Amino acid sequence: MPVITGQQYIKRIDALQTHISIDGAVVTGKVSEHPAFKGVMQSQAKLFDLQHDEALHDSLTYVSPKSNERVGMSFLQVTKVEDLVTRRQAAREWALSNHGLMGRSPDYMNTTLMALASAAEYLKDKPNCFPDHLLNFYEYARENDLTMTHTFIEPQVNRQRYHYEDEEVIIAAKIVGKTTQGLVIKGARLLATQGGITDELLVLSTNGFDKEKGFGFSIPSDTKGLKFLCRQSFVGGESTFDHPLSARFEEMDAIVVFDDVVVPWERVFYYENNEVANNFMNVSGFQAYTLHQVLSRQIAKTEFVLGVVQSIVNTINIGEYQHVQQKVVEIIVTLETMKALLLKSELEAKRDDFGYIRPDHPTLQVAIQIFPKVYPTFTEIIQLLGASGLMSIPSEKAFGADDGDLEHYLQSFRDGGEERVKKFRLAWDLTMSSFGTRQTLYERYFFGDPVRLSSLLYQSYNREPFIQRVENFLKNKD
Amino acid sequence: MPVITGQQYIKRIDALQTHISIDGAVVTGKVSEHPAFKGVMQSQAKLFDLQHDEALHDSLTYVSPKSNERVGMSFLQVTKVEDLVTRRQAAREWALSNHGLMGRSPDYMNTTLMALASAAEYLKDKPNCFPDHLLNFYEYARENDLTMTHTFIEPQVNRQRYHYEDEEVIIAAKIVGKTTQGLVIKGARLLATQGGITDELLVLSTNGFDKEKGFGFSIPSDTKGLKFLCRQSFVGGESTFDHPLSARFEEMDAIVVFDDVVVPWERVFYYENNEVANNFMNVSGFQAYTLHQVLSRQIAKTEFVLGVVQSIVNTINIGEYQHVQQKVVEIIVTLETMKALLLKSELEAKRDDFGYIRPDHPTLQVAIQIFPKVYPTFTEIIQLLGASGLMSIPSEKAFGADDGDLEHYLQSFRDGGEERVKKFRLAWDLTMSSFGTRQTLYERYFFGDPVRLSSLLYQSYNREPFIQRVENFLKNKD
Amino acid sequence: MPVITGQQYIKRIDALQTHISIDGAVVTGKVSEHPAFKGVMQSQAKLFDLQHDEALHDSLTYVSPKSNERVGMSFLQVTKVEDLVTRRQAAREWALSNHGLMGRSPDYMNTTLMALASAAEYLKDKPNCFPDHLLNFYEYARENDLTMTHTFIEPQVNRQRYHYEDEEVIIAAKIVGKTTQGLVIKGARLLATQGGITDELLVLSTNGFDKEKGFGFSIPSDTKGLKFLCRQSFVGGESTFDHPLSARFEEMDAIVVFDDVVVPWERVFYYENNEVANNFMNVSGFQAYTLHQVLSRQIAKTEFVLGVVQSIVNTINIGEYQHVQQKVVEIIVTLETMKALLLKSELEAKRDDFGYIRPDHPTLQVAIQIFPKVYPTFTEIIQLLGASGLMSIPSEKAFGADDGDLEHYLQSFRDGGEERVKKFRLAWDLTMSSFGTRQTLYERYFFGDPVRLSSLLYQSYNREPFIQRVENFLKNKD
Amino acid sequence: MPVITGQQYIKRIDALQTHISIDGAVVTGKVSEHPAFKGVMQSQAKLFDLQHDEALHDSLTYVSPKSNERVGMSFLQVTKVEDLVTRRQAAREWALSNHGLMGRSPDYMNTTLMALASAAEYLKDKPNCFPDHLLNFYEYARENDLTMTHTFIEPQVNRQRYHYEDEEVIIAAKIVGKTTQGLVIKGARLLATQGGITDELLVLSTNGFDKEKGFGFSIPSDTKGLKFLCRQSFVGGESTFDHPLSARFEEMDAIVVFDDVVVPWERVFYYENNEVANNFMNVSGFQAYTLHQVLSRQIAKTEFVLGVVQSIVNTINIGEYQHVQQKVVEIIVTLETMKALLLKSELEAKRDDFGYIRPDHPTLQVAIQIFPKVYPTFTEIIQLLGASGLMSIPSEKAFGADDGDLEHYLQSFRDGGEERVKKFRLAWDLTMSSFGTRQTLYERYFFGDPVRLSSLLYQSYNREPFIQRVENFLKNKD
Repeated sequence: MPVITGQQYIKRIDALQTHISIDGAVVTGKVSEHPAFKGVMQSQAKLFDLQHDEALHDSLTYVSPKSNERVGMSFLQVTKVEDLVTRRQAAREWALSNHGLMGRSPDYMNTTLMALASAAEYLKDKPNCFPDHLLNFYEYARENDLTMTHTFIEPQVNRQRYHYEDEEVIIAAKIVGKTTQGLVIKGARLLATQGGITDELLVLSTNGFDKEKGFGFSIPSDTKGLKFLCRQSFVGGESTFDHPLSARFEEMDAIVVFDDVVVPWERVFYYENNEVANNFMNVSGFQAYTLHQVLSRQIAKTEFVLGVVQSIVNTINIGEYQHVQQKVVEIIVTLETMKALLLKSELEAKRDDFGYIRPDHPTLQVAIQIFPKVYPTFTEIIQLLGASGLMSIPSEKAFGADDGDLEHYLQSFRDGGEERVKKFRLAWDLTMSSFGTRQTLYERYFFGDPVRLSSLLYQSYNREPFIQRVENFLKNKD
Repeated sequence: MPVITGQQYIKRIDALQTHISIDGAVVTGKVSEHPAFKGVMQSQAKLFDLQHDEALHDSLTYVSPKSNERVGMSFLQVTKVEDLVTRRQAAREWALSNHGLMGRSPDYMNTTLMALASAAEYLKDKPNCFPDHLLNFYEYARENDLTMTHTFIEPQVNRQRYHYEDEEVIIAAKIVGKTTQGLVIKGARLLATQGGITDELLVLSTNGFDKEKGFGFSIPSDTKGLKFLCRQSFVGGESTFDHPLSARFEEMDAIVVFDDVVVPWERVFYYENNEVANNFMNVSGFQAYTLHQVLSRQIAKTEFVLGVVQSIVNTINIGEYQHVQQKVVEIIVTLETMKALLLKSELEAKRDDFGYIRPDHPTLQVAIQIFPKVYPTFTEIIQLLGASGLMSIPSEKAFGADDGDLEHYLQSFRDGGEERVKKFRLAWDLTMSSFGTRQTLYERYFFGDPVRLSSLLYQSYNREPFIQRVENFLKNKD
Repeated sequence: MPVITGQQYIKRIDALQTHISIDGAVVTGKVSEHPAFKGVMQSQAKLFDLQHDEALHDSLTYVSPKSNERVGMSFLQVTKVEDLVTRRQAAREWALSNHGLMGRSPDYMNTTLMALASAAEYLKDKPNCFPDHLLNFYEYARENDLTMTHTFIEPQVNRQRYHYEDEEVIIAAKIVGKTTQGLVIKGARLLATQGGITDELLVLSTNGFDKEKGFGFSIPSDTKGLKFLCRQSFVGGESTFDHPLSARFEEMDAIVVFDDVVVPWERVFYYENNEVANNFMNVSGFQAYTLHQVLSRQIAKTEFVLGVVQSIVNTINIGEYQHVQQKVVEIIVTLETMKALLLKSELEAKRDDFGYIRPDHPTLQVAIQIFPKVYPTFTEIIQLLGASGLMSIPSEKAFGADDGDLEHYLQSFRDGGEERVKKFRLAWDLTMSSFGTRQTLYERYFFGDPVRLSSLLYQSYNREPFIQRVENFLKNKD
Repeated sequence: MPVITGQQYIKRIDALQTHISIDGAVVTGKVSEHPAFKGVMQSQAKLFDLQHDEALHDSLTYVSPKSNERVGMSFLQVTKVEDLVTRRQAAREWALSNHGLMGRSPDYMNTTLMALASAAEYLKDKPNCFPDHLLNFYEYARENDLTMTHTFIEPQVNRQRYHYEDEEVIIAAKIVGKTTQGLVIKGARLLATQGGITDELLVLSTNGFDKEKGFGFSIPSDTKGLKFLCRQSFVGGESTFDHPLSARFEEMDAIVVFDDVVVPWERVFYYENNEVANNFMNVSGFQAYTLHQVLSRQIAKTEFVLGVVQSIVNTINIGEYQHVQQKVVEIIVTLETMKALLLKSELEAKRDDFGYIRPDHPTLQVAIQIFPKVYPTFTEIIQLLGASGLMSIPSEKAFGADDGDLEHYLQSFRDGGEERVKKFRLAWDLTMSSFGTRQTLYERYFFGDPVRLSSLLYQSYNREPFIQRVENFLKNKD
């Protein structure tokens, strides 16, 4: 049966010979047993298991039009508005499982692939484009419940406004050859989240100035010459008392190096076609569909933050203060606003050029303006409410050896010392551990540079009717 | 036919002998010809005329269940979700007519009265309560297309936290007697917007500590002993070039003085019943229904601000700057957010205890947290974009006598001097004239003290499920 | 005696035949009797009278090195640090007289002229430069206690980034001819504050791309062909109860049109010298000296705002609320910060290339980053604290005809209705009347575009030592 | 010679038998070799060594009036304004050594003790007060160059407004007995920063409701019954490449438990005197003197942040962007503002009731309003500028094993991969590691609850002159 179990997922990743380099060593044994990946792979496995949970089976899977077997809901192409609702509910179920802390749970990339496949028609009859390769890969991924990571951005060498990269030195990955077997790629790309613990790596280059830069393809993670170079791990340790979140949900970010990697032709979606490289993402429903999934996740995350904050408010009994109430209300406002925008995007969904239904894009663009600004304020709220409680955090071992002092002296209005510290450690791991701060940075930049996102909305939003109204008013035609 | 025309409205108000005192003089002639009221009454008349406009007739009126004639849509009681949509569209039509600048267009008070009448059952069999009076008045208002103003708040004497008013000196209006004719009321209340240009004054006292304070009634504006004491008028002048907004939409705010006013018993809805005084508003759909109308208006206003800002951006050609784009996008974000919350309130509408359908209250409460904070930033945006253009604003007469200098030297990228100044004067009148700043203050406090609104949302919002999720997570039951 | 009296000032201005056009009419009678100028000219006259006040004589004047008579302190060239203290105290005295609300009290322009004159050496031996003309004019102004206005900016036609003005159409003032008598100037400049009520107009063009644009000169306000085109007046009326500020301190902003104005050679400081046009202002102590004066004024203004806010807090008795205290503290923080920066600029004063002592420029640049952002928040604070009190503002006439209702019902904790409304009207005129909002706009842009000011500070501030410290640290050399 | 060396410091602390419990174990060997304390103790030792540095000897020490030997400058009592300058320079030297990251470098507590000793006279002839004990201890500390920690706050059990602690259960430390030897103390206090690595623990209870709570004393860290219970250590590891800051400057925060600790009478400064407990801190120059030291440290820290930010800006070459410049300027503004306030506090220093000179308190109170709000924004700035660079941070070991990929692909405009990552790791450790976020929390709460600090300034700041000015103005007496 197509939808896999958690165990199948782990087994499959372990079986790959992916080149993962971390902390000066290449991972040799089972990835799933490496401290940097163990927790998150188990959390990911849980997602696959949910697909087999009787209560959720129907909402997390649907019947494949090809195999007639049940496949993952995030692969569902959207032919009617109800499909959006179904997709949203499935995304929410998965997000609830990790409280929105796994930004690259497989449904994100599945949605990406579904969006691109739904727009495959755009590639038809264009030079160096292979819509069939894309559709085949989509079906292959869906029927095998593959996991993917991706890299969309180039290394951050020189961010000056008018900088064009030196042609001689290859840093950003580019095509350096074409053989009968496929494209030869050399260079690096940033930042593959979950790099190394997925089946495949999807690569789409955009904004290409040079034709070498325009390409789109997917390759198995253990393709020869492909290397995932990891940052320091932010797993704080195995104790879920000490590190309730990083022990479970820390998704690695890896630099991807292509060392003359050969991409087989059947996996090339397009190459050396600037028009396509520049437009395919925008023409496709990539942004609309992924943002629709992202919002579901961010809503679950906001709910979790609200729960954490309120737990702290309750345990030290500060709920009567107006300034405390105002801070909690800020989170509520964010939560309800995000929910409202998600609903609106469905209510105002429209049929696209390829016959599929897309959630309303501007509505979702608005949401992605808000969250990157608001999410960091949650840290501020937690610090202002938690105060010294976020510094009084002895470890699990300390409580293990406690002679009663910690339990007694760290007690709060509602809880004994251990229960109280548990809550504060959770708040701390959410916002102040290196895992937590990476989450903040991640949400800030989830959909790219906020300044650019703002410009994009400015350019695409239809302001004409409002200008017209003002002009009519000034002409006394109101 | 019940729905009246603009002319009928003006005639009816002019016929009243309402005591209106302004700038040291009592208005003696026709109110509709007084400079402080002329413009706004014409704008209000236009609203009534729209009800007779063939294109809008169906969306602005419905068939009265009593008279079988068409009555104003804002009186419609909500028995199904579609009614909310219909009501929203009607509210929007009226708001478009004044670009959301008339906060007390008649539909606001009609909605208030409808909400109270729909909850009349709550008053049944309670001491000193007269649900029939309320229902009768609702029908009377609906069938005669009455206009109302209201006063909900007490004079701002001493806002200390633990202050209880001196019993000896009457400042806030209270019951000072009961006769066979009715209640006798003495004292003052704040702030009747449109006071003096409506048929009726609706009074509801809330938060009563003393039983004298608890009452609800409506009386004609020209009831004996009733006085409307006006603030300075913010009409800048009659020229719609110089004062495009205040010449049309300036709604007066009046202090209402009750000089032993007798409220006839048939107009008393309740009195001397603390429980009712404290709870009736909350039990009724007052907040939910009026906020639903208010949002429609605020959305139309936000659209207008967006139009004004973009007109300025275009005329001086600054749209390519990122910081300009970001400012415009802030308005777009507000607009789409408000629209999303309004839709959500309808989508999540529920049947209330009295059998009517109410828009989702928490969703609307969220909206009213946002707008009072965001609206004032529009002034900031306009000042930062308009800069010296907001100081270079010669008057209509100046242009009338222009020998070409103004037209030439004040030209912009798109417009000649006069056209350009027109736009800047509009932006100025919207945010920097005394009319404009009063609009800002009005939106800040539209639904009362923001600090209190925040506390109310904190108290009513159901945070339990989120606390529960955190507790489950901490117990490893996630 | 050089320092003049208020009456002498008024007489001299009235005697000029300055072309002032306002509201479609050219001012024909005495300027000092025109409603738009009367109040501010009286306030300005008061400044001159203060120079003769026995108690202030010594601090507001000094002995001219030329005439040996007492001249205005704002003309004092700075040869020692104590001179800065003396200048600061004089600036403060004048600012206290109008509570910092007159941004163009004569000391601002006197300081400008002093700064330029002190750097006259820079012009020496440069083509088309006349340092003697500048020095002569400085002495002439000082010995005659002249008042000046100025225009530094060009009309706001097209603010696109890469826009270069059309050569054919003259909008910004430029040199159109040279005769034996002088330079011929045609075009317009913005925005002469106090335009029309000063003896002279000082013009300095900066940032010139074209050589025609580079010039600096001063001419009498009634020079032939020179026209001051006024915006609408923001004087609300003559009643100081109704308009306590605009009745006294409203400084007009005028567009200045040069209609083939001939600037006599002896009044030309430089022309057609791009290097000088681009650098003279920066080389001179213009920014440092004027900012030193400006800070003194802004400090007096901040104190006034603090007084107004606290008066309102006291009258309605809300001082016990933490959120109220926080708002007042924001003003205190601004006040003390500005005072600290002013002191630091004196403490760190240095001798410049011309032998004069200059207050520390970066310190003052920092202050001018802060105030334009903070000042607008004062409006917010006043609106949030004043609330409905800012809407309940009957006029002086209303109180004049009051039968006791206003006095009684508008009473507050500390004051009867009239006293209370007086305070609220003051707060309103400071921030919400068209006078008040222009003040806000004025402070936002006092020293030019805040974005540009920020870039200038970035470029000029010496960050090297801090980078060096970090590099040493990274090399373990800390 | 009184001023000790680093080695002497380490030896002395190692020799103490202080009970330090961390991560479930009691420290048994040398504290200075424990991973949680090693780095910070070496950094602290460096401070002592600086006292012997020839170049700094004179500025870091002065001649003891008692022993005639050189003692630490932070013990200097202030009898003239110059002493403040000297103290400031010494504080700066020490702060530069750790870039302001050690909030509890010994001079902070030395200053505290000096401030209390200088006000010892206040204790004279008051019941249960021993000014001589305080003076003796001050001299003892000075002559032996002691280090101290302290605890001022009580456990965070119930922060409800009107909560009074249960009398039965002892949580906050209180007097539970008096013997001939001394006071017996039981309970806990928060949060001793550097707890365990200082010679002494100074305890001052304030805001006592109950007389048992009022006491002040100092005891050696290894007093019987005294326990320091540590939070989790935030030392990331020993590599200064990976953890440039936490490897050096992580100051532990410990809960202090008093298990029937006997405080010898000669070390008791006061007890059971509510008036003294409530007022002594305020009457003394504690706040003024310590804030004067704190500002010096915060200034050094701000400079370091500026250096770090600019290094990042330079390495990825983004300095030409206006929004980047604005962010850097925000830091510059903070830096110059803090410097200005520090100078002002010295310029306006006054003699206190005990004959010593105190820096101006309100000025310093203003500074402490600003920094806790601004410091957290530095994290935001670093995240917005650093972006993906803060996620691309391989470890020292990774670079050690690098085959060239990391060096090449992580290169920036100015640096090779390793140099570039070094800078980003520094920025990350400063703001995003658990060390960095604790720094942020620490600065937020350095001087206590910001809301309370704001109320204190409101209450103490003299606003009368400004109210008076407004009243005079309204009476036309301006």
